[in-house]
Amino acid sequence: MSKKKIKLKRAKAITPKGFRDYFDSDVTERQTLIEAICQIYELYGFDILESSAVETVEALGKFLPDVDRPNQGIFSWQDDENEWLALRYDLTAPLARVYSQYRNNLPLPYRRYSFGPVWRNEKPGPGRFRQFYQCDADTIGAHSSIADSEMCIMLASIFEKIGFSKDQYIVQLNNRKILSGILEEIKVMNSGNADQYNVSSEIVLRSIDKIDRLGHQGVRELLGPGRRDESGDFTEGALLSEDQIDHIMNFVCLGESSNNKTLKELKYLVGTSSIGLIGVEELESIAQHTEAAGFFEDRIKINPGTVRGLGYYTGAVFEAELKVEVTNLDGTVSEIGSVAGGGRYDDLIKRFTGQEVPATGLSLGIDRLGFALNQLSRDKENKRTGPVIVTIMDMDKIVEYQKIVTELRLSGIRAELFLGNPKDLGRQLKYADQRNSELVIIAGSKEFEEGNVQVKDLALGARISKKIKTNIEWKDQPAQSEVARENLIEHVKKFMQGK
Amino acid sequence: MSKKKIKLKRAKAITPKGFRDYFDSDVTERQTLIEAICQIYELYGFDILESSAVETVEALGKFLPDVDRPNQGIFSWQDDENEWLALRYDLTAPLARVYSQYRNNLPLPYRRYSFGPVWRNEKPGPGRFRQFYQCDADTIGAHSSIADSEMCIMLASIFEKIGFSKDQYIVQLNNRKILSGILEEIKVMNSGNADQYNVSSEIVLRSIDKIDRLGHQGVRELLGPGRRDESGDFTEGALLSEDQIDHIMNFVCLGESSNNKTLKELKYLVGTSSIGLIGVEELESIAQHTEAAGFFEDRIKINPGTVRGLGYYTGAVFEAELKVEVTNLDGTVSEIGSVAGGGRYDDLIKRFTGQEVPATGLSLGIDRLGFALNQLSRDKENKRTGPVIVTIMDMDKIVEYQKIVTELRLSGIRAELFLGNPKDLGRQLKYADQRNSELVIIAGSKEFEEGNVQVKDLALGARISKKIKTNIEWKDQPAQSEVARENLIEHVKKFMQGK
Repeated sequence: MSKKKIKLKRAKAITPKGFRDYFDSDVTERQTLIEAICQIYELYGFDILESSAVETVEALGKFLPDVDRPNQGIFSWQDDENEWLALRYDLTAPLARVYSQYRNNLPLPYRRYSFGPVWRNEKPGPGRFRQFYQCDADTIGAHSSIADSEMCIMLASIFEKIGFSKDQYIVQLNNRKILSGILEEIKVMNSGNADQYNVSSEIVLRSIDKIDRLGHQGVRELLGPGRRDESGDFTEGALLSEDQIDHIMNFVCLGESSNNKTLKELKYLVGTSSIGLIGVEELESIAQHTEAAGFFEDRIKINPGTVRGLGYYTGAVFEAELKVEVTNLDGTVSEIGSVAGGGRYDDLIKRFTGQEVPATGLSLGIDRLGFALNQLSRDKENKRTGPVIVTIMDMDKIVEYQKIVTELRLSGIRAELFLGNPKDLGRQLKYADQRNSELVIIAGSKEFEEGNVQVKDLALGARISKKIKTNIEWKDQPAQSEVARENLIEHVKKFMQGK
Repeated sequence: MSKKKIKLKRAKAITPKGFRDYFDSDVTERQTLIEAICQIYELYGFDILESSAVETVEALGKFLPDVDRPNQGIFSWQDDENEWLALRYDLTAPLARVYSQYRNNLPLPYRRYSFGPVWRNEKPGPGRFRQFYQCDADTIGAHSSIADSEMCIMLASIFEKIGFSKDQYIVQLNNRKILSGILEEIKVMNSGNADQYNVSSEIVLRSIDKIDRLGHQGVRELLGPGRRDESGDFTEGALLSEDQIDHIMNFVCLGESSNNKTLKELKYLVGTSSIGLIGVEELESIAQHTEAAGFFEDRIKINPGTVRGLGYYTGAVFEAELKVEVTNLDGTVSEIGSVAGGGRYDDLIKRFTGQEVPATGLSLGIDRLGFALNQLSRDKENKRTGPVIVTIMDMDKIVEYQKIVTELRLSGIRAELFLGNPKDLGRQLKYADQRNSELVIIAGSKEFEEGNVQVKDLALGARISKKIKTNIEWKDQPAQSEVARENLIEHVKKFMQGK
């Protein structure tokens, strides 16, 4: 190679800001988690769909929770033919597109699950990445509230399958129509005046959705004159009167009661609003169906404070919370909180088809869920075991070493030949340590002559390995045993089985 | 909803040009294939890595095979801070970035495998998509040709694991240094004059790489004055003399002989070129190691015609071909051909680190391989079985139906309640047919009173199901049997086990 090439400016080796790389158990743990969730989706009769990661901007629409910046939040570009393309920001918008595109050939109802990365062009923060994983299930074409209750049941089943106990999670349940009814009742909206509906109800929704972070007083400010935060930034309010705000806050705080009592109070709060009454009836029906499936209010509970941030929900909404304390990256301890949610979105597909198509679904945030699981098992030794390492003591015997590694693999034992510079046994053992290997095979020309090999148990030997620097010292170690070459594979097999 | 909304222009429901969606068995078959490949990588001691799908354009570099358009071929955009980002176009460039970024904490050699989608902004064609799957394994930090031979052995092991016989595939093996030696020998390049090396040798490489498509005469034209194709387009040639072209074509056509004979001829052809002789020695060593692992030249064969299109290879190159005939989408029959390849690329990491780091790896094209497997099994009935469908005959009994579906799921049986409009049993049975379900549960109020349910075997019943239009006709069908409600789950379980 010419020296000219070396003068080139070196490329920077960095993961783009807000992105991350996943090594080894980061990937396998996520795979295991997704597999467990998909098994539940399969059990419930859903079929897998993997839509393209890239969509036209037109197909994606503007449904990100951050409605203040509807044009931002996604990664988009123009292709050679000036078509605006973008990375999907969730799995629901692509589903609406796929269903509309293939609806003549799909079974109805169409029940599908999907998993995969989604991308958001948002400001990254600690634990907040621009590429993250979702795992969704949706039923399209089912008006029935059984479809909504099935989503709640699946959520609960998933939590129990992946190792949470009944008291570690709760699925909170609500219905958007009830909030609409209440807004109608307090004369904030008029179902005949849709513009007013869409503006005010979204401000109200977003305000209520912030209750965990801002508390009751903060939400009251947002519903009223507006709120100035610690940094001095001012958020405009919904400009409701004190009476109106009282009525809404009564609604939001009902969640402490039993399902039956809450339903009763809701009926009172929606008053004469017909949309509100329909909402209460749907909620009642969902609760009935979840109970029929054996899930009672200790796990699936009506909570009017659960509204979900997304604008497109039209009926039932639900959100799953993990009541598990975790230590965050900054050392603080908090509850994991919301890891999944969903609801009914009867209007989303209409964007494509012009016709209202009933739809309901749920979405699980895999990264947060994985973080919770990882924290729960943090005291356990769950680092993956590395391969058996066949070390090289004598390059002339390379074919012999290779035969050993081949035989191990043929017996289904994960194994590799050390492929770095083999001069130094210490370095080879250090490598085996780094790989978390349990067994190392060592043989020099003398062993080959005698028909033997040495097998070193690294779990026992790790403590002393640092001291070994030369090829002479490696014998006579306590964690090491001599085995006849012809018995080696059986010996390793037995060791693996005996663990 | 207001009528104003309906006036909005409908969004177009289309997959972006060159992208596709994967339904059901498209996804599960790919998952099964990737899992099988990853099991081999694991067995050989490789650890999984999932790098970010998005990279900085700087980190990706310009290593696409289409060197005529080095700035094109990728999907790229600027983020909020004017950083140029892009979707990865393969898994090797991200690996070079990851290794350089984390090298102080990674074991050396670093042996990793990766799989996932990659994206190319290229003109789509039949069976040629802009998002496709790769599944790679690479060893970084190993000079030894054992590392190269291991790649070839893994390729062969993978083919046999996923169901190809020894005579259905071949791994072709070559070494770039030999070609350099030959170019040196015929005075086309001078290893002291790197600019000439890089230009001419890349034209020669690309010309040879087209031999399958253009034939010997076409390659001769490209090595000489240039070539005009059927459409009239002219490709400039390497402007070599007839003697030089003869020498190169002698080299390219050596693949028909035995490995030993080929190696002998290669030694003759590289003459006094030292880089050429090193190449022959490396090739010899790789062949020796693959044989030591039990893979002989019926499966891993030296073929000087195998050069690989990518510019970054510096030593061993290999390519796996499937000698399996398939029916293409346009009805023509052809051999699948190349589905995987790789080689040694000792300079790629230097872009980041400034130091040469030895590296070798392989990449499998999952989509082509999946297509081959799918074609091989096309006569088999491999459509996935759908869930047991519990139909609804009487909405008043909805809780009873739900209990059935819950019990089935608790027994591990994939099942669902029909969630569409239940008025018409024919429609429910049609839905079950579309889902490829084998069993349907049917019960009306009379059955519930008598403590029975009907179980319909759709495999038997499919032929007559179209005739059933009303809820009255569904009884007395041959493929249908009455079962006591309390024995239902056991009955279904036995049916599933008896398949």
